[in-house]
Amino acid sequence: MQTPWEYRYAHRTKQMGSSVIRELLKLTEEPDIISFAGGLPAPDVFPVNEFREACNYVLDHFGAQALQYSTTEGYRPLREMIARHTSRYSVEVSPDNILITSGSQQALDFIGRLFINRGDYIVVESPTYLGALQAWNAYGAQYIPVRTDENGMIVDELEAALRIGPKFIYVLPNFQNPSGATLSLERRKQLIEIADKYGVPLIEDDPYGQLRYEGEHIPSLVTLDSQYRGKNGGTYSGNVIYLSTFSKLLAPGIRLAWVVAPEKIIRKLVLTKQAADLNTAAFNQYVAYEVAKGGFLDQHVNVIRSVYKERRDVMLEMMDEMFPPEVSWTHPKGGMFLWGIMPEHMDAAEVLKIALNRKVAFVPGASFHACGGGNNTMRLNFSYSSPDTIREGITRLGTTLKELIAENKQN
Amino acid sequence: MQTPWEYRYAHRTKQMGSSVIRELLKLTEEPDIISFAGGLPAPDVFPVNEFREACNYVLDHFGAQALQYSTTEGYRPLREMIARHTSRYSVEVSPDNILITSGSQQALDFIGRLFINRGDYIVVESPTYLGALQAWNAYGAQYIPVRTDENGMIVDELEAALRIGPKFIYVLPNFQNPSGATLSLERRKQLIEIADKYGVPLIEDDPYGQLRYEGEHIPSLVTLDSQYRGKNGGTYSGNVIYLSTFSKLLAPGIRLAWVVAPEKIIRKLVLTKQAADLNTAAFNQYVAYEVAKGGFLDQHVNVIRSVYKERRDVMLEMMDEMFPPEVSWTHPKGGMFLWGIMPEHMDAAEVLKIALNRKVAFVPGASFHACGGGNNTMRLNFSYSSPDTIREGITRLGTTLKELIAENKQN
Repeated sequence: MQTPWEYRYAHRTKQMGSSVIRELLKLTEEPDIISFAGGLPAPDVFPVNEFREACNYVLDHFGAQALQYSTTEGYRPLREMIARHTSRYSVEVSPDNILITSGSQQALDFIGRLFINRGDYIVVESPTYLGALQAWNAYGAQYIPVRTDENGMIVDELEAALRIGPKFIYVLPNFQNPSGATLSLERRKQLIEIADKYGVPLIEDDPYGQLRYEGEHIPSLVTLDSQYRGKNGGTYSGNVIYLSTFSKLLAPGIRLAWVVAPEKIIRKLVLTKQAADLNTAAFNQYVAYEVAKGGFLDQHVNVIRSVYKERRDVMLEMMDEMFPPEVSWTHPKGGMFLWGIMPEHMDAAEVLKIALNRKVAFVPGASFHACGGGNNTMRLNFSYSSPDTIREGITRLGTTLKELIAENKQN
Repeated sequence: MQTPWEYRYAHRTKQMGSSVIRELLKLTEEPDIISFAGGLPAPDVFPVNEFREACNYVLDHFGAQALQYSTTEGYRPLREMIARHTSRYSVEVSPDNILITSGSQQALDFIGRLFINRGDYIVVESPTYLGALQAWNAYGAQYIPVRTDENGMIVDELEAALRIGPKFIYVLPNFQNPSGATLSLERRKQLIEIADKYGVPLIEDDPYGQLRYEGEHIPSLVTLDSQYRGKNGGTYSGNVIYLSTFSKLLAPGIRLAWVVAPEKIIRKLVLTKQAADLNTAAFNQYVAYEVAKGGFLDQHVNVIRSVYKERRDVMLEMMDEMFPPEVSWTHPKGGMFLWGIMPEHMDAAEVLKIALNRKVAFVPGASFHACGGGNNTMRLNFSYSSPDTIREGITRLGTTLKELIAENKQN
């Protein structure tokens, strides 16, 4: 006998499906497993001392304001800082183009709520970020996946997708989660042009843009769209909504991210946020501002880069040494993830089960495919584990893969 | 010419309407206005020193975990503490009955997302909490308002409402926002019985339950439902979803609240939260736990009670002295708000415009009415302003009201 509450699940709950990230986060918690499955930053690089100082400063000087309800848009000095940062690195924006959200996941959710009507098509990369699919599934989105390679979305295949009439295009141009691929400059320009030809706007999700370990920074889609439209002095053109976050630059445990969008859209997002959670914690915004201001962020990004670069290099070297030749993988120039491709006949979910017995974990790539496929792919995170742990984990995983492939040849 | 993003507002955005709370919060920011409009706790009672100690302790001992991503359900020790607290004061629950949310507004939003299909009826008090209406309007809710008096919802009128087939009943039984009314014990029991007769579940929203300044605590609906169903030892019966928050007990600037619900519902809410914002800031949960543990909360509630009781008493005394006899008001036994009723022909929005010229503000009551009405009502907050400010503000408002009523008699 169910209680009345249990009888009352709304229709839409059936579409939520099982929660892949959640089940995976559980795996990472088993203490004896070497997990390349999570998407966690290295706790070694959290600026704990700077946080302590900032907390004390904020509570000494702004206790009453930082512990009170605050405006839905976000703490003004923090929005001003983000606006200055954006103006310096890509296009000129005002604080009125910025909304602070409780993590980028909340921005993805609000975008779904504001723009997606049941049945709307969204163009995504294949593979793409699982969290975006989870956010938009709740609003009844359908997806048009466009294939990718090491240079990101294969833009030549985009035009066919745009003829279907999608609501928007969702792209992670830098060191993509999950594939690690970076969209080349040429393709970025081409993407902007084709999107404009069909009048379709873009979402540029850029959590890792600053975490580049080699090569030159490539201008963001926001920047290129502004140039394409001949905006004076690189002013924000409004066709690209840009998302980024403090989760990878400071720490995810404060849940702070931001959206850059046209003022009118920001005002709609503010109303959405007000109905959803009133405002993001003022205390966290005051503290993040105190930590980040005065150039600390630039200096801290260098620390993160050097730690993550070493880990990426160790993982790539170990894969060269330990992985069988039948498996290939990407060589990301930044970010936190790389992407493995096994022979077509292999199923990553089955491989994971065996790997877990050998106490090593990854994410099977199928979950990152909006419309099926990718059963033979896997995502490996290199930011969280120490170099020694990476060596041991890749040894275990490589041995497992070699055995499985050898067994298969025998059969 | 609009940008492509601007063309792409989804249908549902038209239903968001203007944001009344938001516009009002703006008024409260004008420095020369004495505002009884906001719903803010007094910053004087924020436990700033305890927060400072807790931040330092958490960063010294749990820096890596508190700054990392965390589980969607919430920090386990905090959920255990809330479960113990609930078991002591109302019914026995386990931590698996608890979800931590980013403020109660997020819980209201998730409940809407999970349970409300477009066109569903929700039974609400008239007046009711505006934030709940804002959250549920986004999901296409329709409302069945039930009238209230100083003893809360007039339960005799509920049966007719339940015959319409609502999804659930939403009640704020203690020191209601906006009216300050408290649902009597007799009516609570009657409400539980009638709800059970029609198989309709309840949401009990209880942000102020601990802030009682006179009289005896009345058992919660959760408790009474458990007793009504003859649950052994007062075990949670699952028919009432219970919401409460740290916003009024510690500080709203950390955005921490909780839901008590059946385990199955909690699991659905967890999936909802995961798609919406992954998890509530771990840092805030660690800090709140450190502040609240060891009995501090009970001790601190006594401080809040004595400060707010004085403010309530000053406001009531000044209203006795300054308000014209044509205006009546509630005498709340706790909470943060009282409710004024002007003669029928008066429009509170018009009165507010004049009051703002006299540098005093309140919230016109119409916004708290789900289906119109209440144009002659007003909500006054007594928790935020100091006693002297309350004296001055009520003097200004009383003078304004007297003049308006005198003018009206002349015409």
